[in-house]
Amino acid sequence: MIKKHHALVAIAALSSFSAPAAARTVEVPYNAVEEAKKDTYAYDIIEGLTTEIGPRQGGTEAEQRARDWAIAKLDSLDLYKVREERFEMPTWVRGEEKAWVISPFQMPMAITALGNSASTGEIPMEGEVVYFPTYDTLVAADTSQVAGKIVFVDHQMKRTQDGSSYGQFGRARFIGPNVAAKKGAKAIIIRSIGTDNHRNPHTGNTNFEPGVTPIPSGAISNPDADNLVRQVKLTVTKKPLMVKLLLTPKNLGQQTSGNVIAEVTGTNPSLPPIIIACHLDSWDLATGAFDDASGCGIITAAARHVKSQKWPKRTIRILWAGAEEVGIWGGKAYAKAYKDQPHALAMESDFGADRIWRVDFKLPDSAKALADKIAADLAPLGIVRGKDPASGGADVGAIIEAQGLGIIDLQQDGTRYFDLHHTPDDTLDKIDLEQLRQNVVAWTIVLDHVANYEGELKP
Amino acid sequence: MIKKHHALVAIAALSSFSAPAAARTVEVPYNAVEEAKKDTYAYDIIEGLTTEIGPRQGGTEAEQRARDWAIAKLDSLDLYKVREERFEMPTWVRGEEKAWVISPFQMPMAITALGNSASTGEIPMEGEVVYFPTYDTLVAADTSQVAGKIVFVDHQMKRTQDGSSYGQFGRARFIGPNVAAKKGAKAIIIRSIGTDNHRNPHTGNTNFEPGVTPIPSGAISNPDADNLVRQVKLTVTKKPLMVKLLLTPKNLGQQTSGNVIAEVTGTNPSLPPIIIACHLDSWDLATGAFDDASGCGIITAAARHVKSQKWPKRTIRILWAGAEEVGIWGGKAYAKAYKDQPHALAMESDFGADRIWRVDFKLPDSAKALADKIAADLAPLGIVRGKDPASGGADVGAIIEAQGLGIIDLQQDGTRYFDLHHTPDDTLDKIDLEQLRQNVVAWTIVLDHVANYEGELKP
Repeated sequence: MIKKHHALVAIAALSSFSAPAAARTVEVPYNAVEEAKKDTYAYDIIEGLTTEIGPRQGGTEAEQRARDWAIAKLDSLDLYKVREERFEMPTWVRGEEKAWVISPFQMPMAITALGNSASTGEIPMEGEVVYFPTYDTLVAADTSQVAGKIVFVDHQMKRTQDGSSYGQFGRARFIGPNVAAKKGAKAIIIRSIGTDNHRNPHTGNTNFEPGVTPIPSGAISNPDADNLVRQVKLTVTKKPLMVKLLLTPKNLGQQTSGNVIAEVTGTNPSLPPIIIACHLDSWDLATGAFDDASGCGIITAAARHVKSQKWPKRTIRILWAGAEEVGIWGGKAYAKAYKDQPHALAMESDFGADRIWRVDFKLPDSAKALADKIAADLAPLGIVRGKDPASGGADVGAIIEAQGLGIIDLQQDGTRYFDLHHTPDDTLDKIDLEQLRQNVVAWTIVLDHVANYEGELKP
Repeated sequence: MIKKHHALVAIAALSSFSAPAAARTVEVPYNAVEEAKKDTYAYDIIEGLTTEIGPRQGGTEAEQRARDWAIAKLDSLDLYKVREERFEMPTWVRGEEKAWVISPFQMPMAITALGNSASTGEIPMEGEVVYFPTYDTLVAADTSQVAGKIVFVDHQMKRTQDGSSYGQFGRARFIGPNVAAKKGAKAIIIRSIGTDNHRNPHTGNTNFEPGVTPIPSGAISNPDADNLVRQVKLTVTKKPLMVKLLLTPKNLGQQTSGNVIAEVTGTNPSLPPIIIACHLDSWDLATGAFDDASGCGIITAAARHVKSQKWPKRTIRILWAGAEEVGIWGGKAYAKAYKDQPHALAMESDFGADRIWRVDFKLPDSAKALADKIAADLAPLGIVRGKDPASGGADVGAIIEAQGLGIIDLQQDGTRYFDLHHTPDDTLDKIDLEQLRQNVVAWTIVLDHVANYEGELKP
């Protein structure tokens, strides 16, 4: 079952004295890392998904078209056991979305509904705004301040290379609407969880606890939030600040989503597989180049380069997860479907296409030499070794938790990630080909090591 | 009528030996240029217009609110003869705007209608796309290629510091729809006339010749145009490229617009005035910080600083023109209203708020020493002297043409201007305060010279 690929390379005899120049053809063994440096697979996947499919929200017909496309693409790459594994999940879809300041001044705002937002109905909802500079001040507020009002949560997210600010700033979106609803707010608008200054608000899921009735919940763009803050300050002693909202999303009930899976089959079936993941679905506002066509391109290209060199000892299973954005349904479905099959190690790419700057490990002590070797091989790419244990990504979270897997995180530079995240601006032109290839090279190095490592990978 | 303003400046006695530090208060004569370096008037005007008025399209109720605001603001700045001069003009307003690719792939596009576009009606229009890489290829096309089709004109605008690329690339918008309509196209979409890569298409007026029936005309964002071009290439040998458009703008007929005018009155009534202009209206998609609240802030702040030093010999008339974007109606109305009053010199600020990098003159030979002195005084600000004659701006175009005025152009750096121009992104956060102040300083220097110059200014 071992296959070898060879590239025919023409090497010109370079001599200023030889005329005519002689050319000879030699056979050079395929070298996965060298080929990864010239990779075209990753960009090809990103270009295809963004051009031929476009937005592909979990549970929609567009996501089904994306799965059909994915299967054809993975087949065309000579990967094995390419398959779709469907599941059902509750599906929320966007409707109209408009917003206006109506007092003390009158002007429109750029708004987008958060996933799981309630509808205002077709007649716009008007209300007085109650301002909270941060999520924490909303939490601390008395119900009497909030009841019957439209909550506005401010607090502009700041850039971090590692994306670590998302957790703290993101609470306004993740659970702010639930907090506001429990305090009796009639609706909530939040400043977008994003670092840009464009009029493209950032969507994303929010979640209401069981028993809490969802309220209309939207994010306004950073420039609109800046403007609203100025109006809050101007209206301290004047007329109340009033806004009008039209958000008409709908719940479609249970719809079909699915994972697409492919494999590079290992030569030693007794070794548990490595699972590598991205997510195929995107938010509906953009074509999802950064989030997460890139991840699918990177992991697939790397696995393909490893396979082309020689079949590895361990199986590499490639998971293009469905319905990640709207509740990590694909990752959970995978963990359930494969709960009886032991896995060894999990990796994920879901943070754009900019360069990898850090590697983190979570491996057993017995694999110290492996980790050291990987770190040494990544160092020439400018990648530093982190101090904290790897934690994985959303789509492999459930299988990691169920089986206690080894993890390696190739951390991408997130400096500009939250300029684009969940906005209409997440499009193909944002891909930097040089940085994308650095990702593919790093992934190829790591996969080549771990898929040919026969020792224990679970910590 | 001469007034002098003095600033009280506290100068701390700086000595490491004196304890306690003594402070003494001295009276320093008002220096217009030094005050301009600390200017707050310009930003205050921009902040006010964008925060308290927002979008203010010519002919709409929002523009009337802007005029009311402008009059109060100019009065509060102790300017003279503050007044509104209304006129009537035909008014077109935006409706719904949506677009989709429907074959060979299916996905939405970000589109905005061009001013004077026809409506598709409430039922979206579908059609096959005929692709033109440039405006010139559309002009050269045979009617048989275009008739019954939806024209798509590509050709991405490139950045220039002086904005000179606008004329050539802009033809696709200015007259592309007219050309397409005359060849029988059912609609036209153009790549936005812009240099950014955001999903915010650039609007702007288009014009149809008398006798040509307007067609639905829209601009798609650069990322959407990129995508459509990729689809054109993919579909060369496959299914036709089809799009669906929903554009429902309306013509409201004659509506009221108006100019707002104020003056710094000169001490010598026999000297013809200097007219300085900006435009008060904006496009409807944004709050118009760059286009052109900035211009109104800059010219007004500079005139105010000149007045505070001492009343100049010549009157400086400040024109905040109405309805510029939609047909330069305010500038034309001004020229008509003041046709019998001789003017001396015209200047305009309508190219954002970034630094002035060049000064151009159109003055009589007799004013050579004046021009040399102005150029010398501007040089420390990094401003170079241009070789070509000044040409003025849109709002002063009609009065210049009617009276053959002298002109001085303070050319602003337009490198990022067409990232924002006519998009939803033209908002207050884009203002760079340091560059804005450099504009005010340069304008103050120039106005101080020309308003105190008693010689001939007309070439």
